[in-house]
Amino acid sequence: MPELRRRVAIWRQAGESVAVVPTMGALHEGHLSLVRQAKAEGGRVIVTIFVNPLQFNSQADLALYPRDEAGDAALLAGSGADLLYVPEASDMYPADFSTSVAVAGLTDGLCGANRVGHFTGMATVVTKLFLRSGADCAYFGEKDFQQLRVVQRMVRDLDLPIRVIGCPTIREADGLAMSSRNRRLPQAARAVAPALYRLMQEAAVALEAGGDVGAVLAETGAAVLAAGFARVEYLELRAEDDLTRLERLSRPARLLAACWLGEVRLIDNVPVRAPAGREDRDAPC
Amino acid sequence: MPELRRRVAIWRQAGESVAVVPTMGALHEGHLSLVRQAKAEGGRVIVTIFVNPLQFNSQADLALYPRDEAGDAALLAGSGADLLYVPEASDMYPADFSTSVAVAGLTDGLCGANRVGHFTGMATVVTKLFLRSGADCAYFGEKDFQQLRVVQRMVRDLDLPIRVIGCPTIREADGLAMSSRNRRLPQAARAVAPALYRLMQEAAVALEAGGDVGAVLAETGAAVLAAGFARVEYLELRAEDDLTRLERLSRPARLLAACWLGEVRLIDNVPVRAPAGREDRDAPC
Repeated sequence: MPELRRRVAIWRQAGESVAVVPTMGALHEGHLSLVRQAKAEGGRVIVTIFVNPLQFNSQADLALYPRDEAGDAALLAGSGADLLYVPEASDMYPADFSTSVAVAGLTDGLCGANRVGHFTGMATVVTKLFLRSGADCAYFGEKDFQQLRVVQRMVRDLDLPIRVIGCPTIREADGLAMSSRNRRLPQAARAVAPALYRLMQEAAVALEAGGDVGAVLAETGAAVLAAGFARVEYLELRAEDDLTRLERLSRPARLLAACWLGEVRLIDNVPVRAPAGREDRDAPC
Repeated sequence: MPELRRRVAIWRQAGESVAVVPTMGALHEGHLSLVRQAKAEGGRVIVTIFVNPLQFNSQADLALYPRDEAGDAALLAGSGADLLYVPEASDMYPADFSTSVAVAGLTDGLCGANRVGHFTGMATVVTKLFLRSGADCAYFGEKDFQQLRVVQRMVRDLDLPIRVIGCPTIREADGLAMSSRNRRLPQAARAVAPALYRLMQEAAVALEAGGDVGAVLAETGAAVLAAGFARVEYLELRAEDDLTRLERLSRPARLLAACWLGEVRLIDNVPVRAPAGREDRDAPC
């Protein structure tokens, strides 16, 4: 860490701004888009790679998480990143490590429902990476939309001196949201996978046209299963800003889903615009 | 907050270091000693006053906490403090505030045993005050010894860029540890109060002379009650560094107590040196 802080101090003395892009490695075009957007702002860019044991709720899932250090370094070479920071777990978490950062409310449901401690582990490591790097701003993908909102809330609540910027989800040509987990999809499943985004887009169109929220969600869930997915873990309409669950499209919203394709869990989300004149706070008509 | 950050930025640009002394007001000589020690280091000193609702486990205790803004300001006038920062609760905690910082282990027992959420509330507000002030170092009294250790652990664990300095407890002429709560002692109780420190010092001498830990603690607890205290909430020997409970004086230690004198809860602690040659890790002889 002293080396990281030293580098950042030198940049800062030279009047340069510093951005950080926290990742768990197994980099893909989605991560690179964050690095490019950070670089486009004109300052220095730190990419961190740390597969954070605190945010996995099983050792098996942690062991399965894809790792590709050589591939990551090669991808980053032409990306504009100024520094790759890859801390050791023993350095991040000494034996008597005992502090946690938790965000209540926003972490209920969605990806928080079935992953005990996931968001607390994420918030804790992100706090550490923000403070270790001393960066002015941080870039996160909208793909992990709940994570983005949790990080933004945490930064505001703890007065962390950093600006959090959410960036659009990057997709394959067929619409599948890029994810490190996509590497684990067998070929047949890979062919099915884009159906999730396609059906979610259709649902967003139906909702924006005034479709009943409950009916559209039920139909979309059934269509996802019919397309070949094994299970819908969640498929929900939530408020864009604070992730309140919406029964009616009364505010700008996100449709968020986690669905299992065989053994692989895919998540995605799409914006849903509230019709003009209906931007009330879920009040009765 | 922007005004606070602006002031600190100006000091920092001028090459000055910045210290923060977080308090809950009702200032006394103990707080002023922290300000003087901070000032003696040569930089700027920020004193914060914030009676943190998160760290009280009852509204009644929060309402009873002494407040004396005029007296505080008068005391600080000649102390060397450069800036008094008194945030509003609504500014520290907006309505949808939802983040907490918790430290496990160190907060078990002692002052953590009967005060649910106390240390989490303290750690959360101290994190905010550290980050809002952007200070280089922070001064805390050893009077709240467990609090000092919790803050030090939290700073290390979260990589907060601040140095935490513990300062000796300041006492009245008769030995009573200074505390904002002393104001609530009726005259008769005030006369009894110094017995706690006197008996703890005697216990420390007995322990350093090789006295049996269990026997010395039992005798001291009985003597505290005999002196006129209503209840011994805790009286324990703990390791100086990580607050491990000690059955034998095998490492440098602290004797820590919380005792009730009528309606007022007093805490104190004294160092207990481990005899030379006995600095093992509580291993069998």
